[in-house]
Amino acid sequence: MFRLALDAMGGDYAPLQIVRGGILALKEFPELFIYFVGRKEEIEPILEKEANSLKGRFEIVDTPEKIEMDEPPSRVLKKKNSSLFVSAKLVREGKAQALVSAGNTGAVLAVGKFVIGAIEELERPSIGVAFPTPKGKTVLLDVGANVDVKPRHLVQFAVIGHTYAEEILGIKNPRIGILSIGEEEGKGNELVKETYPLLKETKLNFVGNAEGRDIFNGNFDVVVCDGFVGNVVLKASESLSFAILRMIKEEVGKSFLAKLGALFMKPALLSLKKKADFAEYGGIPLLGAKAPVMITHGRANAKAIRNAIKVAMEFYNHHFNDVLRENLQKLAGEVLKKNSSLSP
Amino acid sequence: MFRLALDAMGGDYAPLQIVRGGILALKEFPELFIYFVGRKEEIEPILEKEANSLKGRFEIVDTPEKIEMDEPPSRVLKKKNSSLFVSAKLVREGKAQALVSAGNTGAVLAVGKFVIGAIEELERPSIGVAFPTPKGKTVLLDVGANVDVKPRHLVQFAVIGHTYAEEILGIKNPRIGILSIGEEEGKGNELVKETYPLLKETKLNFVGNAEGRDIFNGNFDVVVCDGFVGNVVLKASESLSFAILRMIKEEVGKSFLAKLGALFMKPALLSLKKKADFAEYGGIPLLGAKAPVMITHGRANAKAIRNAIKVAMEFYNHHFNDVLRENLQKLAGEVLKKNSSLSP
Repeated sequence: MFRLALDAMGGDYAPLQIVRGGILALKEFPELFIYFVGRKEEIEPILEKEANSLKGRFEIVDTPEKIEMDEPPSRVLKKKNSSLFVSAKLVREGKAQALVSAGNTGAVLAVGKFVIGAIEELERPSIGVAFPTPKGKTVLLDVGANVDVKPRHLVQFAVIGHTYAEEILGIKNPRIGILSIGEEEGKGNELVKETYPLLKETKLNFVGNAEGRDIFNGNFDVVVCDGFVGNVVLKASESLSFAILRMIKEEVGKSFLAKLGALFMKPALLSLKKKADFAEYGGIPLLGAKAPVMITHGRANAKAIRNAIKVAMEFYNHHFNDVLRENLQKLAGEVLKKNSSLSP
Repeated sequence: MFRLALDAMGGDYAPLQIVRGGILALKEFPELFIYFVGRKEEIEPILEKEANSLKGRFEIVDTPEKIEMDEPPSRVLKKKNSSLFVSAKLVREGKAQALVSAGNTGAVLAVGKFVIGAIEELERPSIGVAFPTPKGKTVLLDVGANVDVKPRHLVQFAVIGHTYAEEILGIKNPRIGILSIGEEEGKGNELVKETYPLLKETKLNFVGNAEGRDIFNGNFDVVVCDGFVGNVVLKASESLSFAILRMIKEEVGKSFLAKLGALFMKPALLSLKKKADFAEYGGIPLLGAKAPVMITHGRANAKAIRNAIKVAMEFYNHHFNDVLRENLQKLAGEVLKKNSSLSP
């Protein structure tokens, strides 16, 4: 039995779409049990109506408080009766094996880092996004969990990314790069210059510096960077994708023939829009946390929630953290030992 | 008379397209004089054939050496007989008032920084890119000239960006942001946290933190960042734009109706492709150099070179550097004085 804590109150369409996503997953995955965490009076009617046949496979955990979409992480950690905090506590106490939330990213990150925490071998968990490329996918991490980092953290991110690419995305011996400007060794800022030789020393398939363009051209499978740069790139890319699609619409609006053309192209453009929505499929995982934590888009609908639950189960079924522990030791154990520090 | 040094040997289509770009500009702008710098034996025949009527408006400066597209800046600065180096020297000696080159960006940057140099009021010149947004343009700087920077450099970049937006792009009282993660003051990395109060203290129209998404949504006119982050964002964005256009092509290829649609949409898509090519119009200026330096795409054709020359003339005609000096004093003089340092 895989027990999931589902934050039923987080997200733009909570609780209806969140609960429905849980129901979809329950119907599909017989080994799944869900804690629906949130306001019982709002959740119960949905389950009564739509999940009558699933009784025994779920439990409602009644929580009075709710985290708002713009609430700062510091306040989130004080709201101990919120659906998000209680969900995280269920995981910390071992009652649930994973957490899925469509709540605000900063809030989920905060409980992921401070309530659930990283595995002991890691100083920090990291969030990774798998960007679509013409050749497959490229994982960029960290995209916002860790702002000011040291070289050894980037080495940890590289092992985390390697494990994610191999175990979850099915990419064998993933090509690892470090985000920089200029391809040659020695190009980049101080952090990159210090990290490069450490990555070279690991047993990872380290290819060298990756440039901004390499995030989208498929030349690397995993690209590591600090969470500041990664977050800027993630948000810029999302926004640029939508800007381009909007520009297509505008250009198209200027001519009748183009309008007609766009009509024919609609399925193609829709499929593209989906690809451009980087967090659409399954959300963004908080990698290296003691248990799988999936952060979905705030505007996640039932299908997106179902996808996120599916990915959380994959992490669990692949024993992701055990493999990660092994990889940290096997691929970078010596490098990390030499560069360890008591003050992270 | 505005005298321009044109590096005739830099770029994928040099010298033919470069020289032709110069000829286009000469025909259009009667106050223009061009030094065509490069191999006389290659340049002369083009001019003989196509610019006979323009005699007296140009001069060929014969240089034996050429910079290759992948040559590192350190070597560039030793090749003192290259077309690029000699062009920069013409500017430094006051014989030419601006430099245009389609040579490799690192090389042009190197001669811009070390042969021409920044105005005395600035420690470093900066490169800015004007990204298209649904509402107009947003200038991002620095995008690669300065990798590890201090807060006062970002303040200087902000004044440079302000001046560029006002004088060249015609945006009055531009809204200035600092690239960060999270909107609120106090969010970001150490550099951002230290710079925020300084920017607040200036007389610039400082709006606060800009997120990655704000580069493309038109909420800011100028966004400052260090050259590492800026370069990554620039290259990622260029690459993403092309990836999206390629994906459209692929999706379209899957269906006959979509193919037909794409045919009708071709002009719209072409116009979009142009917008996505951020350096297409006029190239990227090295801002704060002692004289205008325009870096165009390596694949610049005659029209792109003509555009770059036009922009260089605008900088000159607007007395860009005089206005910049004034603005540095007027808008940020006190802040910069308090935070000056002898070791940049």
